[in-house]
Amino acid sequence: MGKVYLIGAGPGAADLITVRGARLLERADVVLHDALVEPAMLDYAPHARKIAVGKRCGKRSTAQHFINKQIVDAAKEHGLVVRLKGGDPMLFGRADEEMRALEAAGIEYEVVPGITAALASAASLRRSLTLRGVSRSVALATHSRAPDSAEIREQVNADSLVFYMGRDSAPEIAQQLIDAGRAGSTPVAIVEACSTPRERMLTLTLDGLAAGDAQLWLDASQPSLLMIGDAFAERVSSGQSDADAEHDEAALRVA
Amino acid sequence: MGKVYLIGAGPGAADLITVRGARLLERADVVLHDALVEPAMLDYAPHARKIAVGKRCGKRSTAQHFINKQIVDAAKEHGLVVRLKGGDPMLFGRADEEMRALEAAGIEYEVVPGITAALASAASLRRSLTLRGVSRSVALATHSRAPDSAEIREQVNADSLVFYMGRDSAPEIAQQLIDAGRAGSTPVAIVEACSTPRERMLTLTLDGLAAGDAQLWLDASQPSLLMIGDAFAERVSSGQSDADAEHDEAALRVA
Repeated sequence: MGKVYLIGAGPGAADLITVRGARLLERADVVLHDALVEPAMLDYAPHARKIAVGKRCGKRSTAQHFINKQIVDAAKEHGLVVRLKGGDPMLFGRADEEMRALEAAGIEYEVVPGITAALASAASLRRSLTLRGVSRSVALATHSRAPDSAEIREQVNADSLVFYMGRDSAPEIAQQLIDAGRAGSTPVAIVEACSTPRERMLTLTLDGLAAGDAQLWLDASQPSLLMIGDAFAERVSSGQSDADAEHDEAALRVA
Repeated sequence: MGKVYLIGAGPGAADLITVRGARLLERADVVLHDALVEPAMLDYAPHARKIAVGKRCGKRSTAQHFINKQIVDAAKEHGLVVRLKGGDPMLFGRADEEMRALEAAGIEYEVVPGITAALASAASLRRSLTLRGVSRSVALATHSRAPDSAEIREQVNADSLVFYMGRDSAPEIAQQLIDAGRAGSTPVAIVEACSTPRERMLTLTLDGLAAGDAQLWLDASQPSLLMIGDAFAERVSSGQSDADAEHDEAALRVA
């Protein structure tokens, strides 16, 4: 029986995988990878048999069952099996099903985390997800179909909101957040195909997003991330020094 | 004028930095690193001058101003300057202040994301942060001091909750979540010093956390993460196959 490593490939760029992930790929006998994983990432594994699994869009249970079986079968035949998943395995990744299948088969496994798109997108945007005095929390959510407003209002709330794969429902998400009390002027950033040569970014407001301003810009064939909150505002380069800002903050506290 | 790279060191283990981060460290002339960064991480940068900056606990503005100045000064003297920050620079990292200082000084910079502790802790726990039918969203928040209950109830909400540095306020956080309607039986996992040789994990319930059951276990000298939600429950190894689970789910939908 071999050992299986569930490895997060990160957001796209081959050099945004972890050192641990890259070293394991070098030694891998078999790599079962998401279709979304960039081809350059597979160059880390020159000796491995590479098998594309999963679907870009739509996730049918039968497909997941087949992936589980492929992983278990590979571990019965090979020493080091890598299941390479886009982003981080533990976020929106169906890792639970794969871990259950490995546990049921008595196969040893380990999980190697990956850079999730929210972190890589914040790096590309040069905007911190949390910001002193502005944002102290971040929620990560997904909506492959339009959510109901109660869910956004009551079940997902934080200063900064990041929606994975929110493309089709972007205008609805925006309208529901406005209905729930977020200002229409709240900054929104969209990052598409983060960290790949196809990366594009768009900044607008919640009002603009609700009005459908981003829909023509968005490319349905690429993954995209919706980032919503005051932390994503443009930084004003006022020439004001940090010391001045500190002084103003102190003045505000006195006032 | 040199170029500055704000690099996420990841949760602790030296091989959980990205390949990009490790390669930049190899070429770095100067590395300004958080005190929390593991010593082994600095072995990637054999030629660089290493300067420990920042504080383990407590963040005074004067200290941050001094760090900003050190980074800017280093970039005026050297070609490749790395600012190595624990975890991911864009989450609870004060990167905004550093980016502002670099922009004000007209210094070129880039941000390289890092594995944040929530992802690495989920990998160590072997629990997915999101889980089909259980958890569709994750909130990441921090509380270095006791939060007020309104904040937790209204400003931070998602299926899975992860609190960074919540050690001192863990019982209050738990009680406020119970008061806000979360079941006392909700699973809680605490991961301390994630991915380092000192890593330890504790699982309990929200009731237990509120009662202070984790306080003696926690080591004040180590960073820790509170993970709260049904996604962190023990997996029942019932021997039930995925196909059966699928069948049960279908039955539930009919019922």
